[in-house]
Amino acid sequence: MRTDAVRDIIADWRVFATTHAIRHLTVAPGRVDAAWSDGRISPFHADWLRDNCPCADCVQRLTREQMFEIADAPTDLAVAGAVLDGNGDLNVRWSDGHDSRYGAGWLRASAYDEASRAERRMADAPLLWQAGAPVPRFPYGRLMADDGALHGWLVTLRDRGLVLVDGVPTTPDTVATLARRIAFVRETNFGVIFDVASKPKPDSAAYTAVNLPPHTDLPTRELQPGLQFLHCLVNEATGGESIFVDGFAIADALAREHPADFALLTTVPVAFWNKDDRTDYRFSAPVIALDPVTAKVAELRCANFLRGPLDAPAEVVAPFYRAYRRYQAMTRDPRFRVVHRLEAGEMWVFDNRRVLHARTEFDPASGARHLQGCYVDRDELLSRIRVLARGGPAGDA
Amino acid sequence: MRTDAVRDIIADWRVFATTHAIRHLTVAPGRVDAAWSDGRISPFHADWLRDNCPCADCVQRLTREQMFEIADAPTDLAVAGAVLDGNGDLNVRWSDGHDSRYGAGWLRASAYDEASRAERRMADAPLLWQAGAPVPRFPYGRLMADDGALHGWLVTLRDRGLVLVDGVPTTPDTVATLARRIAFVRETNFGVIFDVASKPKPDSAAYTAVNLPPHTDLPTRELQPGLQFLHCLVNEATGGESIFVDGFAIADALAREHPADFALLTTVPVAFWNKDDRTDYRFSAPVIALDPVTAKVAELRCANFLRGPLDAPAEVVAPFYRAYRRYQAMTRDPRFRVVHRLEAGEMWVFDNRRVLHARTEFDPASGARHLQGCYVDRDELLSRIRVLARGGPAGDA
Repeated sequence: MRTDAVRDIIADWRVFATTHAIRHLTVAPGRVDAAWSDGRISPFHADWLRDNCPCADCVQRLTREQMFEIADAPTDLAVAGAVLDGNGDLNVRWSDGHDSRYGAGWLRASAYDEASRAERRMADAPLLWQAGAPVPRFPYGRLMADDGALHGWLVTLRDRGLVLVDGVPTTPDTVATLARRIAFVRETNFGVIFDVASKPKPDSAAYTAVNLPPHTDLPTRELQPGLQFLHCLVNEATGGESIFVDGFAIADALAREHPADFALLTTVPVAFWNKDDRTDYRFSAPVIALDPVTAKVAELRCANFLRGPLDAPAEVVAPFYRAYRRYQAMTRDPRFRVVHRLEAGEMWVFDNRRVLHARTEFDPASGARHLQGCYVDRDELLSRIRVLARGGPAGDA
Repeated sequence: MRTDAVRDIIADWRVFATTHAIRHLTVAPGRVDAAWSDGRISPFHADWLRDNCPCADCVQRLTREQMFEIADAPTDLAVAGAVLDGNGDLNVRWSDGHDSRYGAGWLRASAYDEASRAERRMADAPLLWQAGAPVPRFPYGRLMADDGALHGWLVTLRDRGLVLVDGVPTTPDTVATLARRIAFVRETNFGVIFDVASKPKPDSAAYTAVNLPPHTDLPTRELQPGLQFLHCLVNEATGGESIFVDGFAIADALAREHPADFALLTTVPVAFWNKDDRTDYRFSAPVIALDPVTAKVAELRCANFLRGPLDAPAEVVAPFYRAYRRYQAMTRDPRFRVVHRLEAGEMWVFDNRRVLHARTEFDPASGARHLQGCYVDRDELLSRIRVLARGGPAGDA
């Protein structure tokens, strides 16, 4: 299959195979419509085409960044002529004399007719799960050695939000060694790597031995950490089981079973406060966030023990509490729960913005319990998946 | 002035002075209305009050985190009685026998009647600026030595978005020493500290000698870095002046002068892509983001050289480009510009989500030019301002 990358198309590092040929062009001063081999018709407006000219005058060759700025094009910019060349690519002559050439594969991948946009929107849908769902397991050794295995693991993590890694050396800081196969670790006020063990002067409930209800970590930050890694170095204490629920499955059930409650939880901001003697983080947002474009559930924000007082119009307060009580009850509902006691050499990795995690109480007098954790953000996960998919390298562990 | 902190109110680290007394209570099973000494009336609903009970059974004394969960209250929970005690605090007896006491100062600060909510919303308004505005200067030595000076600097930074620090030692990595007075530094794929100098194999236009148009850094990330620090170690090259424009002032002018364009720029997502051989970051969002609650301008996202193709409904494309061209022209308009050539020992610190920065071309053959930069997020800035305001410590430099 011919690809556009072999020619002078330099605005992207990806390679765009020509999956469909352009059969016919309809040319007007303000717009070129391309009719494809499968019958689809894609409009391309003059400003859009000029803005995306991939020639070496418009795109910096080394960085592949655009140098041309659309504000510098004449306001009466028009298509003077447009033809298909011998490769089936679109060649445009502009009213100011500039010439542009666009690969058919790139045009098809970037087209914004309704069918093309719908196709792209369908591409990634999360796989929801409930109680009894098996948790995919991945061996540490292969993830460290094999970039193909790494890619498969990251795609599973993106789509399911919860995986278990086993065969992990019980050496301190190994949690970050695996995380760095993706990218750098996100630091927080709890450090780059945090130790989860019972502490005499805790600054968070995580550092006590008590039951921790289902929650996301750091809902007190504008951007909650994307992925959470939790590595078990030793677990000889009684109790302390890990519990996970798929927040997207809960949101999905709530939207179907109680749509009015769902509407409140996706719109009323809730205050989350993380206070101690050295920090004072406060952020407010709905507990269920919808993507502003697709209106699909994008994120949950949840930690009962970190909430501040609700600051909402008085008439919203009672209905909100009815919705919030229902939601909180669902986070405890056995129908959603996956339960597993993490053993030494095992590691949870989960989407902290989707999957709520909980821990049953443990008895610190019954034996040692030591976990280490760290965070990597969603941006880094998605970037690494894209780079691996185009044959690029893993992060530097 | 009496404060609630001296008694058993333990759900917050702040101290709430009793600024107004409660004169009268109106008690119903689902709600208590407090009439204040200034005539304001604040409703407090049963679930809201029970949720915020500050007693030692409901709030963990060491972490000050809530242990009580509202889902565990009876669904028919009701106020059995409510009275003012000798201190003027609200005492509630619940239908299930639990007792709660709420300090009058805390209640006033947390009240959600319309007047109280409006008062809180007015509290922080950014100070907009245009060409000719002086840039506040702060001496490095005082910011390092004096927590009061540190607090004043951070408040100016929050409200104006651009300051200059002078008297900075020209020792490498000093940029992070000052940043850590706030908190840890946000790492990115460009490292913890990045060096801005002309490089033979650049992975960003920043690392060349060319003109850089007005932009925010890393619009390709879901969360753009909050504060940017740029420290000049040496500047002996010709050219390379710093240019700043207040994006909030531009958005304000655009909203008044071209409201239809403003509406498009606040709703149509724009793709930002950061591609190189090792990373592939992609994020889409409107170039002007509004706060979902207040509808005020919250953030700008701007870097012409990092945009991907617009993915919008076909009928939106031509109007969007008209709006985008206008916006881009405004980012270059001299009426908004502050221009200054950074000298060795000076450091810019600015709100990267508000203030666009640009650099004129410089001649790398004419002399050495070396800047170092780093990022600290908005969460850390606001947390440090709150901690310093209640007498807490600075970050650990």
